[in-house]
Amino acid sequence: MVADLNRLERQMRFIVKIDRLKQVIRQSALVDGSRQENDAEHSWHIAVMAFLLAGYANSDVDILKVLKMTLIHDLVEIYAGDTFAYDEVNAKTQNDREAKAANRIFSILPEDQREELHSLWKEFDSKSTPEARFAVAIDKLQPLILSYNNRGWSWERHGVVRSQIVEEKRCIEEGSKKLWEVAQELIEASVSGGFLEDK
Amino acid sequence: MVADLNRLERQMRFIVKIDRLKQVIRQSALVDGSRQENDAEHSWHIAVMAFLLAGYANSDVDILKVLKMTLIHDLVEIYAGDTFAYDEVNAKTQNDREAKAANRIFSILPEDQREELHSLWKEFDSKSTPEARFAVAIDKLQPLILSYNNRGWSWERHGVVRSQIVEEKRCIEEGSKKLWEVAQELIEASVSGGFLEDK
Repeated sequence: MVADLNRLERQMRFIVKIDRLKQVIRQSALVDGSRQENDAEHSWHIAVMAFLLAGYANSDVDILKVLKMTLIHDLVEIYAGDTFAYDEVNAKTQNDREAKAANRIFSILPEDQREELHSLWKEFDSKSTPEARFAVAIDKLQPLILSYNNRGWSWERHGVVRSQIVEEKRCIEEGSKKLWEVAQELIEASVSGGFLEDK
Repeated sequence: MVADLNRLERQMRFIVKIDRLKQVIRQSALVDGSRQENDAEHSWHIAVMAFLLAGYANSDVDILKVLKMTLIHDLVEIYAGDTFAYDEVNAKTQNDREAKAANRIFSILPEDQREELHSLWKEFDSKSTPEARFAVAIDKLQPLILSYNNRGWSWERHGVVRSQIVEEKRCIEEGSKKLWEVAQELIEASVSGGFLEDK
């Protein structure tokens, strides 16, 4: 249907379509716990974090590539929806749903940009490069910072306990040993703060 | 007060503070007109637009620098608030309020990053480089795309007419002649669509 569109028309159509990321609601709440955040806000937050914290990556990373990854990594959720990190049932179909969604969303773009973004998303998803491992580390750390500050808003609602979080966040270490230390400190401080169950 | 904090503590404090950008509400509404967007969502949207549309900049631009600018350009509004582009009363105090806010927000960071971000913000604000002019062009184009798609949601509420928009958006041309053509097409299509008054 979009085959006859020119380059700029395709880009504009994509820019309008991705506005929907602002309506994909995540389980994590804002720092003040006033409401849940959405994927667009989250993507902005981790992009800023990525360039501020790049010095803690385990290897030198191409920061432009990391930024692009953080900005587009959740676009598949426009079609596939957000899968909560501790939702084991929906996790089983997540890969398949997201792969189909990636084909659909990126196909709107002109061919070169379609290939670039699709490839960046696959790289992020498979954690196959230092850039991807660092971007994933930031993506995992951000909701932990929110949850520590809002005293476990989403953990309480979903009955999430310490061991689940340690398991889910452990991959931060692959991207940044230093930020994995930060994550562990936040987890332990949440337990001693009394808003994360030590199980 | 934050003088004794180490580098990572300052960065973490900044990351927590800027979460408030998600609560700075803009006058422009989402593409579907369901609600107004906030500064964090807007910053994400223009960052994606910036790297997709970089090929239309009037000069070659350092895209990493453009991305950083788009991601941080609205942080001053955490303290200074959003000033609607067509609000002539508050526009008079806008520069002063934003300059003070920039000192306040960026001072949380370690010195090198404080200087980098503050300088990027000033560059954006003064449109003094090709990167700044292109970032400003994208920042001006994005709400026009939203308003065209939601049939003038915010224009109608504020009684904004064609000549005001042309005046406010004209600086797009300094960053990208091609995107200024796009903007003019959107403005004319809004007039012929009957949701922008031809005055």
